[in-house]
Parts: sequence; structure tokens; C-alpha cells
Amino acid sequence: MKIGLDMMGGDYAPLEAVKGIAAYLSAQPSASHLFLIGDENKVAPLLQEHGIPSNIYTIVHASQIIEMNEHPTKALKEKQDSSIAKGFGMLAKGLIDAFISAGNTGAMLVGTIFSIKTIEGVSRPTISSIVPKESGRTGLIVDVGINADCKPEMLNQFATLAACYAQYMLDIENPTVGLINIGEEEGKGNLLAQATYPLLKENKAINFVGNIEGRDILIDKADVMICDGFTGNILLKLLESLHPLAQRQNITHPYFGRFNFESHGGTPVLGVQKPVIIGHGISGHEAFMNMIFVAEKMLKSGLLEKMKEWLDKEKEG
Amino acid sequence: MKIGLDMMGGDYAPLEAVKGIAAYLSAQPSASHLFLIGDENKVAPLLQEHGIPSNIYTIVHASQIIEMNEHPTKALKEKQDSSIAKGFGMLAKGLIDAFISAGNTGAMLVGTIFSIKTIEGVSRPTISSIVPKESGRTGLIVDVGINADCKPEMLNQFATLAACYAQYMLDIENPTVGLINIGEEEGKGNLLAQATYPLLKENKAINFVGNIEGRDILIDKADVMICDGFTGNILLKLLESLHPLAQRQNITHPYFGRFNFESHGGTPVLGVQKPVIIGHGISGHEAFMNMIFVAEKMLKSGLLEKMKEWLDKEKEG
Repeated sequence: MKIGLDMMGGDYAPLEAVKGIAAYLSAQPSASHLFLIGDENKVAPLLQEHGIPSNIYTIVHASQIIEMNEHPTKALKEKQDSSIAKGFGMLAKGLIDAFISAGNTGAMLVGTIFSIKTIEGVSRPTISSIVPKESGRTGLIVDVGINADCKPEMLNQFATLAACYAQYMLDIENPTVGLINIGEEEGKGNLLAQATYPLLKENKAINFVGNIEGRDILIDKADVMICDGFTGNILLKLLESLHPLAQRQNITHPYFGRFNFESHGGTPVLGVQKPVIIGHGISGHEAFMNMIFVAEKMLKSGLLEKMKEWLDKEKEG
Repeated sequence: MKIGLDMMGGDYAPLEAVKGIAAYLSAQPSASHLFLIGDENKVAPLLQEHGIPSNIYTIVHASQIIEMNEHPTKALKEKQDSSIAKGFGMLAKGLIDAFISAGNTGAMLVGTIFSIKTIEGVSRPTISSIVPKESGRTGLIVDVGINADCKPEMLNQFATLAACYAQYMLDIENPTVGLINIGEEEGKGNLLAQATYPLLKENKAINFVGNIEGRDILIDKADVMICDGFTGNILLKLLESLHPLAQRQNITHPYFGRFNFESHGGTPVLGVQKPVIIGHGISGHEAFMNMIFVAEKMLKSGLLEKMKEWLDKEKEG
């Protein structure tokens, strides 16, 4: 497998990216070939310093960097020699099988939407985030920010994509799917939730368990939790804030440690034909290692083919 | 002041309501006159048992109870001798100055909307909830569930009402107001947030500080946090779930104790001409005591007059 990695993306790049590669290699010696995209003058010495064997990687020099706060569309257009623009170019041409970056999220999304086709029938790609459940299980919340305004059909499709992801990537067998809402009964909610419920109920691809409320997000009511990107983004950022809060308050309970997104393996864009994995800006080496594993698992598991099958099943009825 | 209290509302009524009255009396011996609405056969012996002096209260017998899960409109229509229906009747007629209940929230809202007029110019009443800030301060989030779908003008009005409440009831001088959103810059967000931002910016009654994100909800970015009732209800219920979660995990840090809504003093309906205070179903005696104090403070502070002034100021500009 040929995995492309943006070496310049994220607050701690390129050092943590290099450390992440080292960690990946110690965990899995027969590795994919890595295409490391970034400033060769910075990246090459670090790779040597950390003893990364040169036969497992190819450096792809990129003279520009899209900074974290640049305007995505503008930056991608103007910085064609940036690591992100180059990565998408290589992915589109098939020179790499997957592309990973912890850089500017907006640029990663715009790049994905403009250069990688959606899976047939998918109206809008989406992104999800894992949610650490109190029980030790892993939940998945979708959408967490690309689609601030959604239509019911979009939420229904996100449910199919996310449930498929949960099954094959998070290894949750027949994951339960809940609609995040403000009451338990069918008929509750804002107009969007009211109109989405019957679609989810009829969706043959998923194991829909009904509405879930805010109090159910951290417990085992539903593995996959569906909402629009406005609600999901606010919930995710609130949950993310619990880890630094716990640290400031000297609360050392391991549960809050699981909200530490420095070590999580990024989130793939769901609904597109090739694996694109977006890391958190604060990704550390564990996160970079995990993102490479996520990309490999997406390729090995045939996830994108499964998603097509699940989308077909969604429409049966 | 004549305060009406539903003795039958809430999971621990009437006992915790009676204990709450006892606590209120020990804290403030020169008390309001209380109209205690409920089943006289149950309430009277408990009042005696807890030594509540009979000159400070009048029992108003109500033969029916609206249970927590009954359909609000239907229950209010069919149970005209319920404590909630009687309370609203007395409030509308001026027999009591304020009405408090920890009973069926939906019935309390429907009762308010149908029997108590809105303040002139208010399009929709709203409810808020306090949010314990990490710093020790108290934040206020609005709307937390009455208005699942909102228009920009509604959110702008909620901001004025909630900021006024924060100033006179929570004693926060010139409270900062933030719009809960998915990015910091103006122009970010779903269509509702995008359209609401300029209204808040122009609102002369409030101290608008811009967008706040999920990660800012528990810190001191804004005292008053504005969102639609769908988002607010989900956020509130997620926050409420942190206290029982901390208890289950034996996390004894006092911050999570502040999320214990058993002791919070309920939430008033904002935007109506008379004080109506809705308690949490799990209200304990502290909550009942606090709700009586909230009702008194609303009356003493002339909050409703202040709200009219602030609403006028909102429209200047």
C-alpha cells in the first residue's frame, strides 16, 4: 500500500509526524511504502535522526505550507506546491492510495471535495468523530462540522456511512444507531429531526434504535449517533474541552484521558472514493501512527466497497 | 408576596417540597405567604410534622395530579383540578404573584403560554439554564428546549431577556453574551447562526462578544450563551449527565458536584408577564427552597419591568 503523509500539517509537525512513523514501524515492521510530502530540507534530516530506514519512504518535496488559519479555497488555489495540494494531486492520480494530514481542516475538506469523487449516490461527504463511552466502548458521532445545515436525506446517508465505518473500522458488530434529539419519542425534535426519524426507521442498512438525548451521548444507548454538523461540532468541542479541564483541575481519572485528542487517530472523510484522513491540529506522534493504521485498515478491509453495498441496502425497502 | 407552590410536582414531592419550605423558613424568617397547591390529605400532615407555622401558608386543595409523562395539552385540559392547572388559574387571576412547580415541564410551559401573557413585543417565551463555569462563575444558556426551531429575531430577543436575567438575578454586571457557533469568525455557522450574528452585533441592550465554540461553554468566554432550543437542550442534558457519571466513577471533584441539578433552583420562563418557575423533576429540598428565593428575587428586583426596558433598548440603534 502507498500511503501519503503530509509532513507539514499540525501544530507539532514535522517532528511528531516523524516520531509517529518511527512508532508505526516498531509496531509493524512489514510496512506500507510511505510518501512523505513536505519540505525536504526539514524532513530528511529528521528521518535520518530517528533512524527511519530509507527503503520504506519516498520524500516528495513541497515548497509551500498551508497554515492552520488560512482560507481553505484561497490557500489551495494559491499554494499549488503546498503539501496538501500535492497530496491531493497524487491521490487523484493514483500515485498514493490514501492521504493523511493534520493540517488545515478546511483545506483538507475542500481538497477532498474538489479532487476526490464521492461514492456513487452520496450527496455530501461527512466527517465523524469517536466518542469515548463511559463503559469503555467507542461511540461515533456524525456529522461533526462539514455540513452545518443538513437535509433529512443527508442525515440518513451519514447514518449508513457511519454505521458501516463503525462495523468494519471500529469492529462494532451490527452497531446501534441513534438520532440525537430532545426527546425519546418519535415525533419529538426540531423539523430536521422529525423528518429524519422516519427515514432512519426505514433504512435497511442500519440498526436504528430511535432517538437519544444529550444524557445518552456518553453511555451505551447508541454506538453511532447522528446529528447535523452544527450540533455535532459543538458537542465534539465541548467533549474535547473536558480533557484539558480535567488536567487543570488535577482530575486524573482515566476516563477523561480518553478525551485526549492528541493521541486519537484522526477522522476519515466518509463518502468519498479514496481514503482521506484528517488529523486534529494537536496531533502528537501517537495520532500520526494511528492515522497510518487507520488508512491501512480502510484499504485492507475493503471499506469503500462495503460502503457501496450498505448504500444499496439503504435504498431497499 | 404571595407565592404559589405546586406540592405534587417532581419525583420527590410532596415531601421534598415540605422540607424545602422548612429550609426556606430557617433561612428567612419573615417570609412570603405561601399558597401550597396539592392534595390536602397528603400535604397537611407533612406540614405539621415538619413544624411549618400555619400562619405563613394556605393550602389550596387540588384533587388531581398531572404525572411526569402525561401529554401536556391533553392533561391540562382534562385535569382542571390538578395542582398545575389550579396554579395557573390563580396566577392569571392575581391570587398569587408567582407560581413554582417541579412537575411536568411540558404542562408548565403550555400552562404558561396559554394563561400568562408575554411581555409586550416578545414573540416567544424561552427557558434558560445555568451552566457552572470552571472558574466558579455562573453562566446562562438559552434556549434549552422550548423552541426547537428558531428564527434569528427570536435568538436576538432571547439574548436580551437572558442578559437582563443574568444581570439582575445572577448579579453579573454587564454580562457578556456569546453566540454558540462552530467557528469564531463572523460569517461562520449554519444559516441560523449566520443570520443571528448581525442582529446580536446591533443589539444595543447587550454586551455581545461574538461567537463562542463548544470548548468555550465551560470557561469564561461569555456569561450568557445563545442557541436554539434543539442545540441547547442537547448540551444541557449532556452537561447534566456529568454529575451522575462522576458519581459512578467515584470522581469527587467539587466541580462536577455543581452539575447536580437536584439542588439548583429551577428555571423561570423568560418573556412572560408573571414569574413562573419550573423545577427539575429531580428537585430536592434545596431546589424547592431556592425556587422560592428565585420567585421572591424576581418580584423584589422588578425584573419584569427591567426586561421591558431592555427590550426597548434592543430596538434602539
